[in-house]
Amino acid sequence: MSKFEYKLIKNDANARLGKIITAHGEIDTPVFMPVGTAATVKALRVDDIKKSNSQIILANTYHLMLRPGENIINQLGGVRKFMNWDGPLLTDSGGFQVMSLGNLRTINEEGVTFKSQLDGSKFFLTPEKSIQIQHLLGSTITMCFDECIQLPASFENTKNSMELSMRWADRSLSAYKEREGYAIFGIIQGGTYKELRELSATHLRNLNFPGYAIGGLAVGEGQEKMFETIEYTEPFMDTDKPRYLMGVGKPEDIIGAVKRGIDMFDCVLPTRSGRNGQAFTSRGEINIKNARHTKDPRALDEACDCNTCKNYSRAYLHHLFKANEILGLMLLSDHNINFYQNMMMGIRISIKNGNFENFSETFLLKRAGGDILES
Amino acid sequence: MSKFEYKLIKNDANARLGKIITAHGEIDTPVFMPVGTAATVKALRVDDIKKSNSQIILANTYHLMLRPGENIINQLGGVRKFMNWDGPLLTDSGGFQVMSLGNLRTINEEGVTFKSQLDGSKFFLTPEKSIQIQHLLGSTITMCFDECIQLPASFENTKNSMELSMRWADRSLSAYKEREGYAIFGIIQGGTYKELRELSATHLRNLNFPGYAIGGLAVGEGQEKMFETIEYTEPFMDTDKPRYLMGVGKPEDIIGAVKRGIDMFDCVLPTRSGRNGQAFTSRGEINIKNARHTKDPRALDEACDCNTCKNYSRAYLHHLFKANEILGLMLLSDHNINFYQNMMMGIRISIKNGNFENFSETFLLKRAGGDILES
Repeated sequence: MSKFEYKLIKNDANARLGKIITAHGEIDTPVFMPVGTAATVKALRVDDIKKSNSQIILANTYHLMLRPGENIINQLGGVRKFMNWDGPLLTDSGGFQVMSLGNLRTINEEGVTFKSQLDGSKFFLTPEKSIQIQHLLGSTITMCFDECIQLPASFENTKNSMELSMRWADRSLSAYKEREGYAIFGIIQGGTYKELRELSATHLRNLNFPGYAIGGLAVGEGQEKMFETIEYTEPFMDTDKPRYLMGVGKPEDIIGAVKRGIDMFDCVLPTRSGRNGQAFTSRGEINIKNARHTKDPRALDEACDCNTCKNYSRAYLHHLFKANEILGLMLLSDHNINFYQNMMMGIRISIKNGNFENFSETFLLKRAGGDILES
Repeated sequence: MSKFEYKLIKNDANARLGKIITAHGEIDTPVFMPVGTAATVKALRVDDIKKSNSQIILANTYHLMLRPGENIINQLGGVRKFMNWDGPLLTDSGGFQVMSLGNLRTINEEGVTFKSQLDGSKFFLTPEKSIQIQHLLGSTITMCFDECIQLPASFENTKNSMELSMRWADRSLSAYKEREGYAIFGIIQGGTYKELRELSATHLRNLNFPGYAIGGLAVGEGQEKMFETIEYTEPFMDTDKPRYLMGVGKPEDIIGAVKRGIDMFDCVLPTRSGRNGQAFTSRGEINIKNARHTKDPRALDEACDCNTCKNYSRAYLHHLFKANEILGLMLLSDHNINFYQNMMMGIRISIKNGNFENFSETFLLKRAGGDILES
């Protein structure tokens, strides 16, 4: 079994090419992690995910503890065996969902009491409990339990929340059971306050986590604020540890964050958009339900070599969405994950070749140019 | 290009092992054709269909003429290219849907006027029009346009309807454009009246169609009546032409019809049931939503080697259905199609080995025995 380790292979300005070694396989960074909330990346088969060159996926502790429950999953060999995914798995801690799903909840020093969105039953989640659940789920990378506050928030509220999250980080780390090739990541909080981000990052660095996440972003603060926050947080993160920007994002967000030294990303956007008929392409987003695609024999993205683009016309995909056919969701989700993973591949190759800046400019310019209308 | 041809390889009592040669590939019979109503076999990717050893699929003229329309499909290279299916394709004529979808319709000698289920617009479908649409769809096997009446029906009504269908068969055949390796099948009508079935079959045989279907069954008459009808119709069908029992059926129906000399089947059951959580297994049907599967680590069917059964537990599939995850529909549909195709393979091998009777007895007995409850 290999030790959990991040190897920095090359810097290109602040962009980083690296590799994460885990008990369940290696991960080339910068990496995008498809989201498999309920132990399935929605509408995708595991071999589709593999074919897209996805190397690690994310699952949600909150959803899985409510249904089917961590004990059932544990008895069946953990999330990876349960869903037939043999690569590395990252689980979030549940903190974000307790916030975002807006359940009636009360927070105290000990933890969070909330009601299940499924049946109203009461749950009490603590750092210790979250870490134990993630252990039972068999996560390769466990995330600390934190409080995620909604922005905008006052300095005082943000400070109090961050400090609570740091005390919970201490407790999370204590509760975590070390296993070779597994890891627990700390989550830097502090909203959009430089001073607080520095305090949080420094606190976690002193605890010597094997990896760090920037949490509490991508919650409505806007791209500019997000990039700014990354910029002043990044210097306080170790260079020999992976850095994970949680819940991000659009292709443009990812490019900008890689430029600022981020290694890991996750987002529901490619799969959720795919189910809604939105396709990511090298020339920007298109809505396949739009009538202009009715007779269009072209691929979604002529620069893409995924199964969907190689084999199906926009006209066919348009038809599937109009007819509410499940295959439409499957093919668009598959394409979008491939688009994201091809982008990540392009990012990694360009860092390797020392021309990430050039790659990203070309990429962004082409996308900003928009779709070519059928002639 | 090969001539369209049926080769009878071997009889085992009345069961027939054969091969159909078409412009788009060979078909081993007895064959089950998955239904791809709107140019997609619901929730299945084309390579899933291929992997299940499906050799021909069916699409519905009625649905495709309404949406996206036969001209759009024709411009995009026909249904096969449109949906990326390179094997043979059979299309029904639309007659059955005009009946079953219960649209306001009026029938006269010329054809059927009906309202679109999608937008209420009026359509007039005639034998000539149906054959032309199927031509534009690029069907390997075109079906005659017929009137399908609901059972029970009086002798007089059934006779009038059958005679109309026979006049429409003449017109369908005249309208059909021959192409090497393509074919048009006549449809025998006559309800459950022996005399009428004989008249209809004889009429079509005199027209020398390359294949025959038995239509107007599996509409509520029950298995006994259906088998009886096949038995007295079969002697009037050529032995050197394929025989297709339309819209059938459950595994037990197929076994019984093969025994009575039928070569081809189609049915929505495996895919529709799959989407509803019902799985076909060698020990009968199971409903995966049932709570007894919550923690069950076993495969749906331990006798099955499909992707779903090799890689997923009943507990996982149960979870996917409880969580309304699309992957659940995908995996169950895939399994069910594999179950059907494995059954067809078993049928063909047993006819080849001259022990079809023994195979079918064992198969039926095991299914009647029911699922083994978890110990």
